[in-house]
Amino acid sequence: MGHKITVFKLLDADVLDSDVFQKAITHRSMGKKNNERLEFLGDSVLGLVISDFLFEYFPNAKEGELSRFRSHLVRGTTLSEIAAESHLGDYLNLGEGELKSGGFRRESIMEDALEAIIGAVYTIKGFDYARSYILSLFGERLNNLPDPELLKDPKSRLQEWLQSEGRPVPSYRVLDISGDAHQQKFLTECRIESLDIVTQAEGSSRRKAEQSAAEKALNIVLRH
Amino acid sequence: MGHKITVFKLLDADVLDSDVFQKAITHRSMGKKNNERLEFLGDSVLGLVISDFLFEYFPNAKEGELSRFRSHLVRGTTLSEIAAESHLGDYLNLGEGELKSGGFRRESIMEDALEAIIGAVYTIKGFDYARSYILSLFGERLNNLPDPELLKDPKSRLQEWLQSEGRPVPSYRVLDISGDAHQQKFLTECRIESLDIVTQAEGSSRRKAEQSAAEKALNIVLRH
Repeated sequence: MGHKITVFKLLDADVLDSDVFQKAITHRSMGKKNNERLEFLGDSVLGLVISDFLFEYFPNAKEGELSRFRSHLVRGTTLSEIAAESHLGDYLNLGEGELKSGGFRRESIMEDALEAIIGAVYTIKGFDYARSYILSLFGERLNNLPDPELLKDPKSRLQEWLQSEGRPVPSYRVLDISGDAHQQKFLTECRIESLDIVTQAEGSSRRKAEQSAAEKALNIVLRH
Repeated sequence: MGHKITVFKLLDADVLDSDVFQKAITHRSMGKKNNERLEFLGDSVLGLVISDFLFEYFPNAKEGELSRFRSHLVRGTTLSEIAAESHLGDYLNLGEGELKSGGFRRESIMEDALEAIIGAVYTIKGFDYARSYILSLFGERLNNLPDPELLKDPKSRLQEWLQSEGRPVPSYRVLDISGDAHQQKFLTECRIESLDIVTQAEGSSRRKAEQSAAEKALNIVLRH
């Protein structure tokens, strides 16, 4: 096994040489001894370490903002990015079929494996070591977090901005629905009467179309 | 503050006398200095401690079973039960209006406060202390966990039982929908052709009605 990639090189030899670690890099396509249980554990370890970090890093952020950050860091593409940068996929024990799978499927396998590695590190070395490991893995990503405000969805941000200006909330309307029953397209409009702004956007659901229309409106109001 | 209730008496004086602890027992109805951020943190601490416990306690359980247990212990009524047994509500700093609220609302306030207390304990004393605290709080509850199998929903259990017997899966059918648009009642049937079993059940959604019908069928097949 190559120990040169980031995901591995941060770990001591006793971790890397352990059976638990071997299990952590073994996908269920290889049989019963696989990383699913360790992934369950690692997911919780990661959740706490990130929550703890955010709690300290943003002493004034509200609970809702902290939650959005955690989702962004934990559930988002962050884990698969870290895994991909390390070419973790090259080191996993995967069944034939899985080796060939690409795209989203492959990303999710790598993400799961990274969580399982975190779980293995925790069982062998305890919480503090696992914490340092995770913080090192995330590295610069944790020092360049966006403004909590930006993680909100556009509709919420638009509404809050308007309210802070003492203006009425925008109205949304579906203008057109096209396409087959299972592949519908929604065209919606976002209207801010008091500012004479009307934007339109399409989306695969009403909600998505509304969010896009709100984003367009937000870009207009924030540029003025 | 009374230190005699379980939730408090397990904690050292330095925790109980701290500002952070005071914050943890203060509901947002009392103003800006409240327990919401600590609740965010405590939720993750609790998640990891319970995951870790389950991982060790059920060495053969699959990931899905562990997840169901965690939900059962963490999101369920368990926390509010623990809070209620301790009369935690009597010790919380709550606004006038909230003091009077009863039922579900009150339960959720107590549950949140308990999570915030866990968060406070973690920030002051670290992970290992918080872990012992949580395990003591849960106490006997962790030694009397039900068979993981029982936490599955009835439809899954019925299907798995039938498959283990080499029989075809059951079929479900909506027999009747009644009531207004927003208060519909569904009457469904669960039919196991190969065993000549037909059950019916009502529910506020198709899914719920099907689960009830499956449960009835399950009770029949398991008694034979």
